[in-house]
Amino acid sequence: MTTEFVKNEVDEAGRFRRQKTRFITPFGDGPNDLPVEKDRYRLIVSYACPWAHRQLIALKLLGLENVISVGVVDPVRPTNVARTDWSFSLDQDAVDPVLGVHYLSELYLKTDPTYQGRFTVPAVIDLQTGKVVNNDFLGLLRHWETQWTRFHKPDAPDLYPEKDQAAIDELNDLIFTDINNGVYKAGFATSQSAYEEAYDTLFDRLDILEKRLSQSRYLFGDHITDSDIRLYVTLVRFDVAYYNGFRTNRNRLVDFPNLWAYARDLYQQPAFRETTHFDHIKKHYHLSAIDNPRQIVPKGPDESILLQPHGRATRHY
Amino acid sequence: MTTEFVKNEVDEAGRFRRQKTRFITPFGDGPNDLPVEKDRYRLIVSYACPWAHRQLIALKLLGLENVISVGVVDPVRPTNVARTDWSFSLDQDAVDPVLGVHYLSELYLKTDPTYQGRFTVPAVIDLQTGKVVNNDFLGLLRHWETQWTRFHKPDAPDLYPEKDQAAIDELNDLIFTDINNGVYKAGFATSQSAYEEAYDTLFDRLDILEKRLSQSRYLFGDHITDSDIRLYVTLVRFDVAYYNGFRTNRNRLVDFPNLWAYARDLYQQPAFRETTHFDHIKKHYHLSAIDNPRQIVPKGPDESILLQPHGRATRHY
Repeated sequence: MTTEFVKNEVDEAGRFRRQKTRFITPFGDGPNDLPVEKDRYRLIVSYACPWAHRQLIALKLLGLENVISVGVVDPVRPTNVARTDWSFSLDQDAVDPVLGVHYLSELYLKTDPTYQGRFTVPAVIDLQTGKVVNNDFLGLLRHWETQWTRFHKPDAPDLYPEKDQAAIDELNDLIFTDINNGVYKAGFATSQSAYEEAYDTLFDRLDILEKRLSQSRYLFGDHITDSDIRLYVTLVRFDVAYYNGFRTNRNRLVDFPNLWAYARDLYQQPAFRETTHFDHIKKHYHLSAIDNPRQIVPKGPDESILLQPHGRATRHY
Repeated sequence: MTTEFVKNEVDEAGRFRRQKTRFITPFGDGPNDLPVEKDRYRLIVSYACPWAHRQLIALKLLGLENVISVGVVDPVRPTNVARTDWSFSLDQDAVDPVLGVHYLSELYLKTDPTYQGRFTVPAVIDLQTGKVVNNDFLGLLRHWETQWTRFHKPDAPDLYPEKDQAAIDELNDLIFTDINNGVYKAGFATSQSAYEEAYDTLFDRLDILEKRLSQSRYLFGDHITDSDIRLYVTLVRFDVAYYNGFRTNRNRLVDFPNLWAYARDLYQQPAFRETTHFDHIKKHYHLSAIDNPRQIVPKGPDESILLQPHGRATRHY
């Protein structure tokens, strides 16, 4: 497995340009929306994937775990297939117990036999048809937060509070473009200049957020929002995957006092910790997302330090 | 360029077994020794290579820079040749100005047309014949220290003091086997178990030396010895090459308080700093010593922190 699988997403200057999302129909009550119904959908995720990981955090924070079912793919991509894929080889008989398929590609190709893109997680499958109805890695999080409110648990946080929506959208744009996707731009660049451009922008943005998080517990005051979920998934992968695998090595997460304490604060909350699987993250990035012909997984670093006290809940900002 | 070049040095369990050294005739005054003569030899080095770097440190510490001439190869291995080699492409017309060759292999094959091993630095060339007379990466350091004393500068340190010789030899064995070569055993392992075995041993040994260096400025009290030179060359490469390139990522050098201060102490001495070329180190390891089809050199980390105060000269142990 090499990084050949993204070769169609690199421009002439060696920059990684992520593919456009194919299935973006929103959830809602309009005639063209996906209906908001309990037990109707199955969400396919990889625990390794930051875009999928976000969904799991939100489902748990909001109390939607028993409303949407979840299928988990093997973090190591199958190598016995023609196109880059994800497999259900962690399940009994290597078959998803609900959907009855071995590979994610089967669901995409059942939905559209002419589909040419990468088969990506997260993917929402409508159990009535067995087809992919949404794989909007950027927008899906927002649907759980705003369209699925009738199923939220009573004490669910408001992850997209009205007064902060414009500011959240603006910050999310920076987080996505230069951080969440920024690490991939560094890792998948095929020219030194494209890599360094992504690296410089990434650390410039992290420096900005490091300062911001010296002034408040979360990105927007003392309540968790959508933006925190988006930032967390990249931070928690930083030292175990991106620093070495994607060469984002100006410094590690643990070298930023505020970002590091903030990541610990989030990790120590069940919705974050219980959805963070370092074994999946390390295997995926090092065996399937970078060039690694020896197929050896780095043994370090020690992730248990995420459980060290963070002091942010009681600190004065 | 991949790590194919060491494939003949890996055992059936995936462990890296470094090749035997071919030219080990010692310097000395005996009838079979290499004569100790000023202006007679040329030492070929790569600034990237820890085994060659040692020689440069010793030559400078002892005042032998004008006694032995030095040729420097390009840190990036040539890719237009059949066997793994080093080239003189940094020199005018890509030719060593003294020896008149383009590649190190020419010198080895002139010496022994049947030579089958890797063409390695350091290599000492006798200018009377143009042949390799010594490539003893392990023993060469000792020759400068003990056989070339008549050319030492007046205030040269005694790097192998009589009272500590047995202890130095014993410690050097640990440093070589588990640290200097230990990082290569981790990086060149072809099985997960061989990698983890090397990783565990490496950090076990570094933990021992971390403790030892809390008790004295250098490995043997308050004077630099041969052992310090041997340890330094691996430490100074740790965070820029081995941590990410060879997956030795339990922690970085900067995470060991004593080893890190000790490395800064040495780096701030001219013989160490002036022979430490991070551009060569980073290019060599990341472009020629690890599997890196994209040929991108990591931009970080910041090496200037080696100039931060170390406090070891005035500290009480």
